[in-house]
Amino acid sequence: MAREPKKILLLILDGVGDRPSKNGKTPLQAAKHPNIDSLARSGSSGIVDIISPGVPPGSDTSHLALLGYDPYQVYTGRGPFEAIGLGMDVRPGDIAFRCNFATVDRNMIIKDRRAGRIDSGTEALARTLNGMEIDGVRFYLKPGVEHRCALIMRGTGLSPDVSDVDPHVEGAHVLESQPRSSSARRTAALLNRFTGRSHEVLSVHKVNAMRRQKGLLEANAILARGAGVVPHLPSLRDRTGMRGLCIAGIPIIKGIGRLAGLDAPSVKGATGSMDTDLDAKFGAFVKKKAKYDFFLINVKGTDVCGHDGDFDGKVKFIERVDASLGKVSRSLSDVIFAITGDHSTPVTVRDHSGDPLPLCISGETVRRDGVSRFDEVSCARGGLGRIRGKDILPILMDLADRSEKFGA
Amino acid sequence: MAREPKKILLLILDGVGDRPSKNGKTPLQAAKHPNIDSLARSGSSGIVDIISPGVPPGSDTSHLALLGYDPYQVYTGRGPFEAIGLGMDVRPGDIAFRCNFATVDRNMIIKDRRAGRIDSGTEALARTLNGMEIDGVRFYLKPGVEHRCALIMRGTGLSPDVSDVDPHVEGAHVLESQPRSSSARRTAALLNRFTGRSHEVLSVHKVNAMRRQKGLLEANAILARGAGVVPHLPSLRDRTGMRGLCIAGIPIIKGIGRLAGLDAPSVKGATGSMDTDLDAKFGAFVKKKAKYDFFLINVKGTDVCGHDGDFDGKVKFIERVDASLGKVSRSLSDVIFAITGDHSTPVTVRDHSGDPLPLCISGETVRRDGVSRFDEVSCARGGLGRIRGKDILPILMDLADRSEKFGA
Repeated sequence: MAREPKKILLLILDGVGDRPSKNGKTPLQAAKHPNIDSLARSGSSGIVDIISPGVPPGSDTSHLALLGYDPYQVYTGRGPFEAIGLGMDVRPGDIAFRCNFATVDRNMIIKDRRAGRIDSGTEALARTLNGMEIDGVRFYLKPGVEHRCALIMRGTGLSPDVSDVDPHVEGAHVLESQPRSSSARRTAALLNRFTGRSHEVLSVHKVNAMRRQKGLLEANAILARGAGVVPHLPSLRDRTGMRGLCIAGIPIIKGIGRLAGLDAPSVKGATGSMDTDLDAKFGAFVKKKAKYDFFLINVKGTDVCGHDGDFDGKVKFIERVDASLGKVSRSLSDVIFAITGDHSTPVTVRDHSGDPLPLCISGETVRRDGVSRFDEVSCARGGLGRIRGKDILPILMDLADRSEKFGA
Repeated sequence: MAREPKKILLLILDGVGDRPSKNGKTPLQAAKHPNIDSLARSGSSGIVDIISPGVPPGSDTSHLALLGYDPYQVYTGRGPFEAIGLGMDVRPGDIAFRCNFATVDRNMIIKDRRAGRIDSGTEALARTLNGMEIDGVRFYLKPGVEHRCALIMRGTGLSPDVSDVDPHVEGAHVLESQPRSSSARRTAALLNRFTGRSHEVLSVHKVNAMRRQKGLLEANAILARGAGVVPHLPSLRDRTGMRGLCIAGIPIIKGIGRLAGLDAPSVKGATGSMDTDLDAKFGAFVKKKAKYDFFLINVKGTDVCGHDGDFDGKVKFIERVDASLGKVSRSLSDVIFAITGDHSTPVTVRDHSGDPLPLCISGETVRRDGVSRFDEVSCARGGLGRIRGKDILPILMDLADRSEKFGA
């Protein structure tokens, strides 16, 4: 198209969607957000099923959809996205697993699948194993909360088509991983060798010597499960021609952004929690506006409050976002701006739900539908109707004069 | 999720959707239904394309969609669902056909495809053939209205991939069923043997002797068409963990309920017609509420009036449903309640149409969208927007805190 294409800012209030609770209102209905409402007035609103009606999205599947991918096609299981969520440097083709530190006896019988819910020392234990090489394949391990960790296998000719080492019950023998197809034989064999080698290394580790002394269960085995391959996603640049920037505090969002070919720098003060520096996040957008075409900003506080069941906290965080957004309103005047969530995290549920998300899109090219408030009920009356998460990016690109005609 | 999951009641007003006729109103717009409207006020409304926009659903395909199946995937043709509709005890893997009683001469040339629209004696004729065994395969026959009947073949190694015996024109020879694939050879051969054997048996039946005496056309052949296999549907319990109860008067709905793994008892007074005992149906829900998680209630009177072109009757039946529902309102307070139809049966059309259905979902967890009336036009302004029939069950499960996250 002849016109100068516009830039796009997609603001994700993580877990913002909710159900009626306090006085029959949702936090978005109870909160004051004049700046967001002003954007709503100059655009179109609607509701979004991020995945599909009634299906609660994870943070991983939802952001894949928001970046325009069909999550049912590109989501390759928990392993890879667990690794991304821990901030591991994953690469397309890596085989990734969710793992536990566990306690086994000398015959590899499992005494505790969670190593007594070990809460310290896993960094040191993982460091000993991280980078191990077996037969040309590298193993990378990174701990998460308590006994949880993620494992990556990197090398050529690997396959995710292998069964779990974790038998999922105590008192059972650690399993031999089995190939589910002939091309996965080497991967299963290597995973089994890693399981044996890591047991040897962990058994003599000083963290475990200390745990023995204190009468604690040793973390002397790594139980891998949920194998998946890190998908090769066609990049945002290749799909759309846009240079993308992902501004997020938490590793899973940054990781998915990078997988999609967006730059995802660390922003000082962006914590991925309630105390995040929202001005710094929006400031990063203003600063980088010239250099990129597409910006995804994720703020996590709304989701944190949802999981905590904190209605008032969620209201306050929404109001903080609104105030912070107001400060950069001049930088929004020439962009296509969209605000929505990645999933609902109702304070009454304290977990993700499948309730649809409100969405508002504003900008010079956007039809004005008369909706003047950004919340679950007002947006449902809007001109965008009810759409799917993966449709948001194409809609934004079209409004930014960046879409390509299908046909002639 | 940690919270106690809620129970779900899905009330289907069969054929309730309509088009404007009397004073430009639909029966739902003309009727007074304060109890249903009160539920609408405490929830969200929308409109539903049970199958897909503009496609008139059958009672079979619609209820498959309402139970969360993709009808395009699981609907295996008219034969199986005709058999279910006649109340036959079908089993997954059965091969079923729609059939006619017909009149043939001694050379198997068809004189009348409908045996003079025979209107009595078919019960006795069918009884003679019902249960016939040929080469280890059982044949079950049940008559429907006039010359219509359904045939089931039950045994191992059967295939639905066979052509019709019915040539669909008079003056033609009864066809030899042909296999459309090599695995269907035996099925075609057995069907041909059944066709021959049934002709022999029927020719000497006393019902036909009486018809000859009266100068009526004999019903001396069974013309099978529309072969289909009874699908093996993953059960509601396996898909969702819910124990389901289907409360319906007519065989097709009970049969589809059973195929989906729901219990579908006979409810005394539930006739599937205008004179049905609505209090008994809602009473069955109240009585069984503790034992099941998901309830589907189908009331048929609205559809009967639609087929009869009876506007006032449809209005009155809707008002009767509303009054009856009002009596059990206390039992609805803690459930997720949804009311919609399975298809429109406009009184001006006297048949199913593809007009979308109004839908209202209410319950503690449901967003209140401000819609205060249950009808085709009011619901179209509601917060649910426009959805598909197969999305209703996932949405209800989510609101009942019974859904599973996709991703992490």
